[in-house]
Amino acid sequence: MRRLDSSTKGFAEAFDVLVNDRRETDSDVSSIVEQTIRNVRARGDVTLLEMTRRFDGFDLNKEGWQVDASTCRAAFDGLAPDLRDALNLAAKRIEAYHKAQLPKDRDYTDKAGVRLGARWSAVDAAGVYVPGGRAAYPSSVLMNAIPAKVAGVERLVMVTPTPGGEVNPTVMAAAHLAGVDEIWRVGGAQAIAALAYGTDRIRPVDVITGPGNAWVAEAKRQLYGVVGIDMVAGPSEIVVVADAKNKAEWIAADLLSQAEHDPTSQSILFTDNAAFADKVALAVDAQIAGLATGAVAKQSWSANGAIIVVKNLEDAMPLVNRLAAEHLELAVDDDRAEALFDLVRHAGSVFLGRMTPEAIGDYIAGPNHVLPTGRRARFSSGLSVLDFMKRTSFIALDAQSIKAIGPAAATLADAEGLPAHAASVRKRL
Amino acid sequence: MRRLDSSTKGFAEAFDVLVNDRRETDSDVSSIVEQTIRNVRARGDVTLLEMTRRFDGFDLNKEGWQVDASTCRAAFDGLAPDLRDALNLAAKRIEAYHKAQLPKDRDYTDKAGVRLGARWSAVDAAGVYVPGGRAAYPSSVLMNAIPAKVAGVERLVMVTPTPGGEVNPTVMAAAHLAGVDEIWRVGGAQAIAALAYGTDRIRPVDVITGPGNAWVAEAKRQLYGVVGIDMVAGPSEIVVVADAKNKAEWIAADLLSQAEHDPTSQSILFTDNAAFADKVALAVDAQIAGLATGAVAKQSWSANGAIIVVKNLEDAMPLVNRLAAEHLELAVDDDRAEALFDLVRHAGSVFLGRMTPEAIGDYIAGPNHVLPTGRRARFSSGLSVLDFMKRTSFIALDAQSIKAIGPAAATLADAEGLPAHAASVRKRL
Repeated sequence: MRRLDSSTKGFAEAFDVLVNDRRETDSDVSSIVEQTIRNVRARGDVTLLEMTRRFDGFDLNKEGWQVDASTCRAAFDGLAPDLRDALNLAAKRIEAYHKAQLPKDRDYTDKAGVRLGARWSAVDAAGVYVPGGRAAYPSSVLMNAIPAKVAGVERLVMVTPTPGGEVNPTVMAAAHLAGVDEIWRVGGAQAIAALAYGTDRIRPVDVITGPGNAWVAEAKRQLYGVVGIDMVAGPSEIVVVADAKNKAEWIAADLLSQAEHDPTSQSILFTDNAAFADKVALAVDAQIAGLATGAVAKQSWSANGAIIVVKNLEDAMPLVNRLAAEHLELAVDDDRAEALFDLVRHAGSVFLGRMTPEAIGDYIAGPNHVLPTGRRARFSSGLSVLDFMKRTSFIALDAQSIKAIGPAAATLADAEGLPAHAASVRKRL
Repeated sequence: MRRLDSSTKGFAEAFDVLVNDRRETDSDVSSIVEQTIRNVRARGDVTLLEMTRRFDGFDLNKEGWQVDASTCRAAFDGLAPDLRDALNLAAKRIEAYHKAQLPKDRDYTDKAGVRLGARWSAVDAAGVYVPGGRAAYPSSVLMNAIPAKVAGVERLVMVTPTPGGEVNPTVMAAAHLAGVDEIWRVGGAQAIAALAYGTDRIRPVDVITGPGNAWVAEAKRQLYGVVGIDMVAGPSEIVVVADAKNKAEWIAADLLSQAEHDPTSQSILFTDNAAFADKVALAVDAQIAGLATGAVAKQSWSANGAIIVVKNLEDAMPLVNRLAAEHLELAVDDDRAEALFDLVRHAGSVFLGRMTPEAIGDYIAGPNHVLPTGRRARFSSGLSVLDFMKRTSFIALDAQSIKAIGPAAATLADAEGLPAHAASVRKRL
């Protein structure tokens, strides 16, 4: 954990290092992924079969390529009642929040008599990647699948590796609840390539979302343009802005809730009180010792954690904006949280006040937990129904309105040296 | 030009070829662009200086790195009055259409007492690429720059090559009108890399939009994630759906207005009348002969043009949807255009009725002319203010509402094996 103080010499340089530290492995996945995509395009299901045997250790032809709907329903029915209730509540709240995101069509006629507008429509088919193993999270299934269904996607396809042939029942229960239409037991870059280009068995989709390892992320990046993707995702992060009136152990838990995800995760605390900073640091160490995820959390906190003491929290906000964090907690009194929020320019999601730990947003609040990481909140947004929709603009002129605006179009076409453009207008004048 | 008839044997296969024909050169630009990006990151302005000398044939240090505001204002003042009026009208109409796109913030408290919402904000800085030479279009400057300014972008940077040191006055006039803040005389992949990573002279931006050649497009694709980009753009296309009541020479002009852009452009006509198809084909040939852009239009029409005769126009719409064209004209009576439009699932922009040639949308109507190409209208939309904005979601709980939804969050965290997540909630219950 780095400890910085904004009043000390060299702070600006140390903070720059923190901002520019990408935590992303620039390893040589790019060419491997390129080759995998080429293989899937050329050999389709044969490549999926071979790679699944090699990496997941089972035979798709023997154990089945798909998980069927009845298996998912049975998984849902078999959940412990409190978990089923929790998933139901989460699904309802996520659905309600995303329904309110649905964009409105426009259709109007302006003063020149020109009818203009835009219509929104869903993509035909979307694919959701769900990681296998340790990172197989039912909450991710809900957060990716529900916005697609709310958008109106007719065919929602899930791909997920099932290492050793093991199907994760909680993930399948979530797929049932979210209304996923097809589930294929393939993972990795090969699953992304199959969704993008299609194979004999798997029909292609138009948009691919969902988290994954470096190979999955690189495959999505390389196939952006062939299909739509949600975003380029990197390691997760949280920035907590907290005054000394907080309970140190609450704030420590919040920092650890990010750190326990992965060794590359990052947790940063800004506070205006050095004694409080000490208390939180102690509480983090104390809590790590008791966590089942303590080893991962410790790695993350040691390598990437930071506590930054500032003169006052308002001063911290320009620094917070430079970090453009995925998650930002403003753990202060409600009115001050509001004032600090007004100073936020870049953040994926903001958690206001002392009673809003970030984990509430991961599971149950309603807004999407798929959020821009690695300073990408400067230019991108969390997942929404818009990622599964597209807008078609439209224009309608008549004999009158083309007289009003047509001549200017022809003049501009002349200036750009495009005579057929000009002619297509002038012939109608 | 291909001539197809939907009632003949082999039509399905021939149409498949048309749909899957990408017209995009899979040439080896990728590794060259990769190297250029590396060079700009490592050597910054020195690389820009060297590449500009080599490719554009002038010395940035001697002739100036930037075009200053007074030059742009002078260019605007020096325009022929009808061209200045046309640019002014275009700018006003584009601004009006895009202002109406501005998204609304949300802020509400639901039944559980949870405050939820989302705030939209502009990116800090955006870069617009404007090609040099033949494709230096003032209309592109307006279509890229005005939405950025309407979104609220404070720093709008234009990069454009000035081959031989020649500055295009109409482009500079458009930059003045659109409120561009900085103009750098650099182009190619190196200009995109400079905008993404910054150099000593050029500060980095958050989003890069604008058309360019294969190197520029590939640089944007490779840097997607480092910055936001508008889209992966390919050759332009138009689909015209027209009955026999149209004047053949109007429809021919519409087809040619696409074909004259570039040899890789594509123009496709669907009609329900073989005799009308013949007339249009003849009119195209006749008009090509008289066009200053005839050589390009001829290449495009010969290699990529198509006329498809269908039984009735309603039957054509599933085929039209498979093409998911950038531009779609429905040149039929107004009520039938409306009915056909209701059958459109995928198109960048639709032009309704006989009096709406596509060129109106290129210049003056108001909707953006930067539209998805190469079947990408299946999943993406034209440029809008949203491309220069991002959404920050927010959540606020209090002591009551965390009791309502907190326990479910903790249950889900337990199920996912994330104890610090659960603890951060339970400590507050």
